[in-house]
This record gives sequence, C-alpha cells and structure tokens, in this order.
Amino acid sequence: MAGKAILYSYWRSSCSWRVRIAMNLKEISYDIVPVSILKGKDEQHSDEYRKINPMKQVPSLAIDGNILIESLSILEYLEETRPKIPLLPSDFGARAKVREICAIIASGIQPLQNLKVLNYVGKEKQQEWAQHWINEGFRAVEKILSTTAGEYCIGNDVTLADCFLIPQVYNARRFQVNLELFPNILKIDTRLKNHPAFREADPEHQPDCPNK
Amino acid sequence: MAGKAILYSYWRSSCSWRVRIAMNLKEISYDIVPVSILKGKDEQHSDEYRKINPMKQVPSLAIDGNILIESLSILEYLEETRPKIPLLPSDFGARAKVREICAIIASGIQPLQNLKVLNYVGKEKQQEWAQHWINEGFRAVEKILSTTAGEYCIGNDVTLADCFLIPQVYNARRFQVNLELFPNILKIDTRLKNHPAFREADPEHQPDCPNK
Repeated sequence: MAGKAILYSYWRSSCSWRVRIAMNLKEISYDIVPVSILKGKDEQHSDEYRKINPMKQVPSLAIDGNILIESLSILEYLEETRPKIPLLPSDFGARAKVREICAIIASGIQPLQNLKVLNYVGKEKQQEWAQHWINEGFRAVEKILSTTAGEYCIGNDVTLADCFLIPQVYNARRFQVNLELFPNILKIDTRLKNHPAFREADPEHQPDCPNK
Repeated sequence: MAGKAILYSYWRSSCSWRVRIAMNLKEISYDIVPVSILKGKDEQHSDEYRKINPMKQVPSLAIDGNILIESLSILEYLEETRPKIPLLPSDFGARAKVREICAIIASGIQPLQNLKVLNYVGKEKQQEWAQHWINEGFRAVEKILSTTAGEYCIGNDVTLADCFLIPQVYNARRFQVNLELFPNILKIDTRLKNHPAFREADPEHQPDCPNK
C-alpha cells in the first residue's frame, strides 16, 4: 500500500505548488497525476476524483497508505513524518510566525482569488476583486516580514512560509498587483527563483503545463 | 512580560470563538479585550489595533511575551507549548484528518462568509453567497466525518477539529443552511452544546455580547 507517493496536482494551482515545493525540499520522490481544474475540463468533479478529495480541489497526496487533502494539513504531515529536512524552525514563537504567514495566504488571500470563486464573481469584476484581497493580505505579510525576514521569510532557513509565499507572488503577478509596494516579498521571491526545489515545482516545469 | 494571556476577541467572530474554546479546554486563564468589528464601529482598523494585528482581524492573542494572530496558528502554538491537555491525537494520519477539517473550515468556508467579504459582496446577495460556500464545505466535512467520527470529529476525544466545527455550525444557522443534510455534523454539535469549555466560549457568554 505504501510505495511511491502520488500527488494529484494542476500545474497552475498555487495550493498544488506549495506541496510540490515542500516535497522537493524534503527530497520525497513522487509521481504526479494531473487533474485539470480548467473551466470546461473540471476533472476535479469526476466521481472518481471526488472519492479522493471531497472538496473537489487539488492537491491530494497519496502517501504512506493515506490519502491527504488540504495543502497546509499535508505540509504539517510531511513535517511530522519526515523531520530530517525541517521546514519549521525549532523555536515556538518562530514556528507561530511561519504559520501566521501560511494562514494569511491560505485563509486570507488564496480562497478569495481561486478559480472557483472567480467563476462565481464573474468575468468583469475578477481582476479588481483579486487585487483587493491580494493587496490586503500582502500588506500584512510585508509587515510581519519587516521583523522576521532574513534571507527568507523567517530568518535564514527556508520554511513552510516560503512554500506558501512564492506561488502567491505568481498569482499576484497574474492579477497585475503592484509588487513594488512589497519590497521584502519581492526580495525573497527573487532569491528563491533559482532555488532548484522551487524551480522544479513551478508551473512551467509541470508535465501538464500546456507550453511545456 | 509574561503574565496573564490577553485575547482580543469579538463575541460573534467564529475565529475568536475557536481560540476561546481551545483556551478553555486547555485550562489557560485569559482576559478578553473586546474589539468590535461591526460595520460603523470598525475598531479593528484603529492605528493601535493594526499594530497588534496587521490583518485587521480578530482574534489576536498576547501570550508568553508574543503577540500571535490567525486562529489556526494560535491553536498550533497552544498545542506545542501546552501539550498536557492535547487537542491533536498522537497518530500522524489522525492528526492529518483533524487538520483537514480545520483547513476546510479555515480556508474553504469561513473566509468566504466572513463580515468583510459579505460587505464587499453586497446585502442582496449575502445569504445565497454564504449558503453556497457553507454547503460546499460541509458536504466535504460530512464525508470525512463518515469515516473518522466517534463521539466527536475524530474518534472519542475532543480535538482542534471540534473547536473549528462548532462555531461554523452557528454561522450556518445564521445563514439558514439546512443542517439536516449533515447528520454527523449535527450530532457532534448537539453533543458539544453543553460541554462547559464550549458553552463558556459561545457568543452569548461573551462580555461584549449586546444581550448579555
């Protein structure tokens, strides 16, 4: 039942991307099963996939005989079961700061600008809507980073916060958010662009990327 | 610097409520500082409060010399620093199921039906909008509970998942969601209604509840 991990993923899904980064950083080998969430394809709604993920979302991760959903929960599981390359600092207060950044992105930004919500908001209001929530959240993240950042979000080691931040910066660019307002975020994004674990996880390097 | 913990809370905020339940369960004493997020009051936007919480939200928790924000991050911190009364099971797979339910509510439901998003959606569409996302999320939670629930969400011990579920059920009732569709959720809600830690944390028992 164990075997190689399987990640159900969509190339452009920022939640899938978070997990891809963490899997790469922790050197866990996995196969990707692409699930197209594109309007019209909607593979996440198939009977078969709903049995895997009742939220009808990517990612899902089959690992150690478990099927796991929800990126933050998946990353906590990987951290607990594969602690050798840690993505949380040891200090309790610093761990809380990592998780705050993850939570701001996972609850305060991404849910409000993901594809299924944008479909509901309607085409003409999508860009303004997405920009509003990304700006709100990034202002808070930038404020936290002003006291916590070193080379990366929290000090000088890559953490779960970086796994969440980089995909969200990509989304911010898609919605033409003015990133010059967020110098700490931009600095970390630039620094991680060429990190192998991040580069291999990015949308353009995925098997289901259409221009690959 | 340490002293008694201070919880910045709003009586009807489900995110504040999650933390109140966990603090009560873990028998951590705290004082409440009410922050009114009601439209027109908007105390969360004050310069003073923004220094505490750059997301301009409740809850925030001052504890152990730290100021913590984001309910899920706060609960993980309490679990790590106060493990004596645990709110996560010991098994890794079961912990992941707890966190999945927390994440579905924290990312898939609550952000889409909280006050600041409803203000943005506009009065005439609020109820339909909120019902849509609560039903989507509760269908997934109900599916998970069908395999994990005992007396409570995960087995027979109260966990973080219950701290997240009960306030969300209250919100579902406010938006007139048909809870008969979710028998496992209803059963757990009924069972926890009279649990002292939950009862003392509920909106009606808060110092800033207007009808108190």
